[in-house]
Amino acid sequence: MSHSIAFTKGHGTGNDFVIVPDRDGELVMSDDQVAALCDRRFGIGGDGLLRVVRSGALPEGVAAAEAGAEWFMDYRNADGSAAEMCGNGIRVFLRYLEVVGWADPDAGPVQIGTRAGVKTLTRSERGYEVDLGAFVVTDDDVLVRARGLEVARPGVSIDVGNPHIVVALGSEAELGAIDLGRAPALDPAPDAGANVEFVVPSDPLVHDGVGTIEMRVFERGVGETLSCGTGVAAAALAVRHWAGSAAPDGWSVTVPGGELGVRVIPTDEGPHVLLSGSAHLVYSGEITLA
Amino acid sequence: MSHSIAFTKGHGTGNDFVIVPDRDGELVMSDDQVAALCDRRFGIGGDGLLRVVRSGALPEGVAAAEAGAEWFMDYRNADGSAAEMCGNGIRVFLRYLEVVGWADPDAGPVQIGTRAGVKTLTRSERGYEVDLGAFVVTDDDVLVRARGLEVARPGVSIDVGNPHIVVALGSEAELGAIDLGRAPALDPAPDAGANVEFVVPSDPLVHDGVGTIEMRVFERGVGETLSCGTGVAAAALAVRHWAGSAAPDGWSVTVPGGELGVRVIPTDEGPHVLLSGSAHLVYSGEITLA
Repeated sequence: MSHSIAFTKGHGTGNDFVIVPDRDGELVMSDDQVAALCDRRFGIGGDGLLRVVRSGALPEGVAAAEAGAEWFMDYRNADGSAAEMCGNGIRVFLRYLEVVGWADPDAGPVQIGTRAGVKTLTRSERGYEVDLGAFVVTDDDVLVRARGLEVARPGVSIDVGNPHIVVALGSEAELGAIDLGRAPALDPAPDAGANVEFVVPSDPLVHDGVGTIEMRVFERGVGETLSCGTGVAAAALAVRHWAGSAAPDGWSVTVPGGELGVRVIPTDEGPHVLLSGSAHLVYSGEITLA
Repeated sequence: MSHSIAFTKGHGTGNDFVIVPDRDGELVMSDDQVAALCDRRFGIGGDGLLRVVRSGALPEGVAAAEAGAEWFMDYRNADGSAAEMCGNGIRVFLRYLEVVGWADPDAGPVQIGTRAGVKTLTRSERGYEVDLGAFVVTDDDVLVRARGLEVARPGVSIDVGNPHIVVALGSEAELGAIDLGRAPALDPAPDAGANVEFVVPSDPLVHDGVGTIEMRVFERGVGETLSCGTGVAAAALAVRHWAGSAAPDGWSVTVPGGELGVRVIPTDEGPHVLLSGSAHLVYSGEITLA
């Protein structure tokens, strides 16, 4: 049986999503259906799908509802598999809530349920800011090789809910010369793989109190993308780590799809990393779900 | 000034298009606006844009209107530049006309104006068939080199309104091993470049009277695509040329995006090549033209 659904397309710094409103959690979509919607030539196209559903309407959202998150981001990867969180996707999710009038970020922080727990978002200068929570920096170097990179480089491991390896390069020319058409090789290779970020800290590093970085990213299982929210946070955390005590807590990270902000703030449970950036709705449509 | 326009998204064997109805030719779109609509992450996404306009409403459509073509396919490439023709696009164009009720292919052949002249389409077993017109096969070999191809191979030049070089390979394994992430090198290089098709004729070549071919294509200025209508016609014409007097006039060509049919028929002005294949409308939407 096929039926028509309404959707909206949105992106955050070029990381793009099909947004499907489903207030009461009545829409069951198979992996194949989600993959068909996310197909860029035979479907709508997107890096993932965001289903907008009331937390209380989903078994996995009950805890979020109890914690005060009215809405749950049911995030699916482009292949249809369920995913925990997406730092760009959750800003686009809030943009949608705001435009349709289901949340008001001007009235205070908005809590959004995800499979990685409840996240808090606020309006920020760049658009919206999401608290990604605690992070772990592990200093045992991983050697990274990539096509177009002359010698293997050491990378630092950053965990911001998902694993990243961040590698520093010396110049924008070196960054541009890397061919990310193939996955970088990691030695030792983490069991579950890792996203890999290549970063060029600016020289001098800090402008007006803000550390600035240029970066490209290879997403595990995806390939090079225009932007990766957690990767941007990992990049800032790595450079902050290398810079030591002189490092600022505010960062500006340029990716091929745009510019994002990263902040590190103290909390009762230790430092948190926050990601801020734009979120845009591009168009709305209707499609038949086969 | 920005305003909202309605569109439909469609594809023919994975070659995808943004379809914009504009009966009275009132919608002027700059190259940048078209490129923004065709952007796969920041816009709708497509290999090109098809504006559906009455031939009589356009200065360049007047001759088509006089020749009996009510509708004109104003085809724009994904970068916004105007293009002559597109063998997959024109089938999708007719599919749109049929679905909205502006043409009835069951009532007889439908004439559609293009910058390459008026084309005639009919309903066919695979979907729709378009007469691409006359063609030229030139036998002075061009040497083709590609990453993943062990030695340079000779290719034959086919002109079906646009230029193609077709290269025969020995096996599907060889076809799969080619890396089309980079443009194949042509020696001598045609002044205006050329699309390059790598083909594997089946063994035996003819099944039930139909010659069968598998192919991959590198489109000039674009890269590898899932399908190229004129490339499919060129592939069949090249293999037909190599097969000599024993060659059939009907062909089935499999591309990564699906399967298309090619026929060669005699006409008063010499042989014509016809392309047939499916055409699908995927969804409709509204977007603000910035």
